[in-house]
Amino acid sequence: MELLEIGRCAREAEPQVRGLSTDEKNNLLLQCAADLQKHAEEIIAANEEDMDKGRANGMSQGLLDRLLLTKERIEGMAEGLCQLAALDDPIGEVLSMKKRPNGLLIGQKRVPLGVVGIIYEARPNVTADAFGLCFKTGNVVILKGGSDALSSNRAIVDCIRGSLKRAGLPEDAILLITDTSRETTNAFMKMNQYVDVLIPRGGAGLIRAVVNNSTIPVIETGTGNCHIYVDESADLDMAVNIIVNAKTQRVGVCNACESLVVHEKVREALLPVLSRRLKEAGVEMRADQKSLPLVEGGTPADEEDWGREYLDYIISIKTVSSVDEAIEHINRYNTKHSEAIITSSYENAQKFLDQVDAAAVYVNASTRFTDGFEFGFGAEIGISTQKLHARGPMGLLALTTTKYIIYGNGQIRP
Amino acid sequence: MELLEIGRCAREAEPQVRGLSTDEKNNLLLQCAADLQKHAEEIIAANEEDMDKGRANGMSQGLLDRLLLTKERIEGMAEGLCQLAALDDPIGEVLSMKKRPNGLLIGQKRVPLGVVGIIYEARPNVTADAFGLCFKTGNVVILKGGSDALSSNRAIVDCIRGSLKRAGLPEDAILLITDTSRETTNAFMKMNQYVDVLIPRGGAGLIRAVVNNSTIPVIETGTGNCHIYVDESADLDMAVNIIVNAKTQRVGVCNACESLVVHEKVREALLPVLSRRLKEAGVEMRADQKSLPLVEGGTPADEEDWGREYLDYIISIKTVSSVDEAIEHINRYNTKHSEAIITSSYENAQKFLDQVDAAAVYVNASTRFTDGFEFGFGAEIGISTQKLHARGPMGLLALTTTKYIIYGNGQIRP
Repeated sequence: MELLEIGRCAREAEPQVRGLSTDEKNNLLLQCAADLQKHAEEIIAANEEDMDKGRANGMSQGLLDRLLLTKERIEGMAEGLCQLAALDDPIGEVLSMKKRPNGLLIGQKRVPLGVVGIIYEARPNVTADAFGLCFKTGNVVILKGGSDALSSNRAIVDCIRGSLKRAGLPEDAILLITDTSRETTNAFMKMNQYVDVLIPRGGAGLIRAVVNNSTIPVIETGTGNCHIYVDESADLDMAVNIIVNAKTQRVGVCNACESLVVHEKVREALLPVLSRRLKEAGVEMRADQKSLPLVEGGTPADEEDWGREYLDYIISIKTVSSVDEAIEHINRYNTKHSEAIITSSYENAQKFLDQVDAAAVYVNASTRFTDGFEFGFGAEIGISTQKLHARGPMGLLALTTTKYIIYGNGQIRP
Repeated sequence: MELLEIGRCAREAEPQVRGLSTDEKNNLLLQCAADLQKHAEEIIAANEEDMDKGRANGMSQGLLDRLLLTKERIEGMAEGLCQLAALDDPIGEVLSMKKRPNGLLIGQKRVPLGVVGIIYEARPNVTADAFGLCFKTGNVVILKGGSDALSSNRAIVDCIRGSLKRAGLPEDAILLITDTSRETTNAFMKMNQYVDVLIPRGGAGLIRAVVNNSTIPVIETGTGNCHIYVDESADLDMAVNIIVNAKTQRVGVCNACESLVVHEKVREALLPVLSRRLKEAGVEMRADQKSLPLVEGGTPADEEDWGREYLDYIISIKTVSSVDEAIEHINRYNTKHSEAIITSSYENAQKFLDQVDAAAVYVNASTRFTDGFEFGFGAEIGISTQKLHARGPMGLLALTTTKYIIYGNGQIRP
């Protein structure tokens, strides 16, 4: 299908999808889950084509692993759709309804965004996941996946469209852009008439390309250069446990700790113990001059380290002489994602919560909790590091907007 | 000041402005109001320079009137700042605070956006207004006004910076871009590092230019092709009153009615009476074939009329045979701003509220109420016709975002 035709089909399906009842949406999600498992072999066969091409093109082991679909992974995709079916439907709730002096009743009602565009890399599991999130919230989704996963995506989308068709629902609730050329992708990012919001899911390069080229409003999910600051009054055992957890529990994720900021008064008590633990876990430590002698196996940090998101077994270590200096350092180098203070001081805890500019600011806990599931949303579209529309972990609500509904009895404006 | 230097100054002032107390902000707004009136003569003298240049350049009477500052208009600007001082401060409110099973307390706190960029035309009253809205919500504002109002804007900004300085507050809470070249404006729209959100205020051309060129998130305020649909069960006296009000109470505004949609069963009873009233008010009526014979002084409408925002004493008239056809017509041609149904049918009222896709949907009331003041917000930044972040009339809340604050006692992720 041509790009403009895809846009037109999406807009045509939009009113029907927006109008579906909660039961219709949930039943369809459960049916899709069953159908994905039923068609697992076909999907895996399509995925093997992609894998073969990937190997022939010299794709790295890491990327191949992300591309691979197995029976278990397809079960995981199906399980995700079932979980979405079990969540509350946010659509239709009236958030408030107030009476104006002239008698007008003005309410704000939660409604779908309309048509959501998702641009992502060669991770076919995103295909079912993105559809599920959008469908649950009454949105039509247009998918533009990585070219390396085209066969896999086609098989998954065909399967979902089959479920929709058999249920008598609009197949065009999910549309796949199969022309993966750069020109088409660029044109897609400028289809303001047909797409209400664009969400890039993937690495920093993909996100930057979408932010720089899209004329459609974008929800930016971003990188995390997350800090943990150990205050002078910190419980040091707690500090060690939290830092080791935030750095090593999973290193390739945006809410992992990348930089440690230490008050000079606890440096000597903390760093020898901590660096032994981190070294045991295989973490490379890049420390500033003041802390380096206390860091077992440390190497000198340079200016560039303060701004790095390693996504690896590496941490930078910076000494400060006050909570104010810590806050200033963090606000200069962070990516506005997740930041933590370890402290026993009421005053410093409140100051850190107030003054650190980030989507999530913690006292005495690991930054690894910044996550839609950990926050209790039951689903996650991504973690927004922009300030518009949604900030921090995004659940289903991020895929909705509101409209004002006004009940009158003949009011005119004087 | 160079553009990048302006960006740096804004970011440097941001933490101080964000941290101001409600009293500090309100006192400053009142002081600015007093100082604007005190310096009214200087501001008017600067405005005369702009007016002279405008006249010499053959600026239209309408634009000259928008550019003009008088003692009364400066009093109006001051009065606007005093009204803002009287409003509740939205910053710092914690919207919810929930306990997770692991004991983490997760709250969502309302905070400023950071640095707000405003791009507008030669309307110097916007200068004080935009500053007031941004300052009240703890934001730094960077202003880029029309080149035709440069002297006026400079005088107003100097006055406000003087008030800030004398109060011991950061002068850079307000910054003016004085290089009004197209290159600088384009560069400004790509300063993602320094600006958190960009709000264009002005006509459709300005807004389109910002949407198409900005890489910074934009809040789009837009045009209004607003419809009123008269259902078969409508109270026709009410319908006439509402239509005349929505069309003629003020024609040059985005919430004025531009198109009438009439059910065929009430056409004969409604149109002769209505068209007489509209004709008396000087309204040109462009009607479809079926309604034309009933419209006194009407002319034939063509396809283009359905999509026009006239902003003038003109209205288009379309006949339909059902509420469904009305909804389909409106959803095809509207600009998602404000739409109304006049009806006595419970079922059709609910259907219209549900299915019409717009920021504000009315039953039995004039579309002219779509306005921050009429909705009871006490202030208005504009009316958003996009679906992200804010939709419909925007009050102070549209200039805020949230951050998650998390209280723990040593939690790590298992």
